[in-house]
Amino acid sequence: MHFDHAGIATEDADGLAELYEDLFGLERVHEEVFDGMRVAFLACGESYFELLEPVEDGTISRYLEENGPGVHHLALATADIERALETVRDHDVTLVDEEPRPGAWGHSVAFLHPRDTGGILLELVEH
Amino acid sequence: MHFDHAGIATEDADGLAELYEDLFGLERVHEEVFDGMRVAFLACGESYFELLEPVEDGTISRYLEENGPGVHHLALATADIERALETVRDHDVTLVDEEPRPGAWGHSVAFLHPRDTGGILLELVEH
Repeated sequence: MHFDHAGIATEDADGLAELYEDLFGLERVHEEVFDGMRVAFLACGESYFELLEPVEDGTISRYLEENGPGVHHLALATADIERALETVRDHDVTLVDEEPRPGAWGHSVAFLHPRDTGGILLELVEH
Repeated sequence: MHFDHAGIATEDADGLAELYEDLFGLERVHEEVFDGMRVAFLACGESYFELLEPVEDGTISRYLEENGPGVHHLALATADIERALETVRDHDVTLVDEEPRPGAWGHSVAFLHPRDTGGILLELVEH
């Protein structure tokens, strides 16, 4: 496994992408509207920042209302998400997604509940 | 630059390190007491999880009281922290640390204020 991305809730994905390019030289390598969000990926070594801007009501708009902008989740890349989920199930960690589902950028994803992961909403992602 | 680590505030670094090893195969590669915290680094590809457990009152104990466990900061690795800070200063981003200071594991670090980074406490780190 390696660190795949930090998912960042923001009201302004364009502005934040430009800022991170100016400050840190991070390039925007993918962008799409997915599941009611504008999603932009900024490459950062072998990892990404995934900027999440709501375009309709949903998880991220509610997150922003309650918490303001910031880190929404962290994601680990795996070559075999089915097997990774099996290991997680074996340790009685609560899953948000019992089975992998389609995520942004054509990836297969599943989220683990923060209550069993040290307070972090963790995503498994298979590219 | 590449993604260096996610700093995780926790009441139990040992327990969380064991869980992440069991769930994701992440190995603990360094541990020390630094600045009133027990700090454990778990390798995750070219990045790390940095687990931060307070051993005395300070930033992380206050963070835990206010927010509970979870993501405290994100860190970007740079080969030249002085130059990286200069770029940040040029963009009028508020700095927590005006100059690099010693961080855990012998690294040189400087934090950027979340108010100017999209709500994220961002750390620059030079190994």
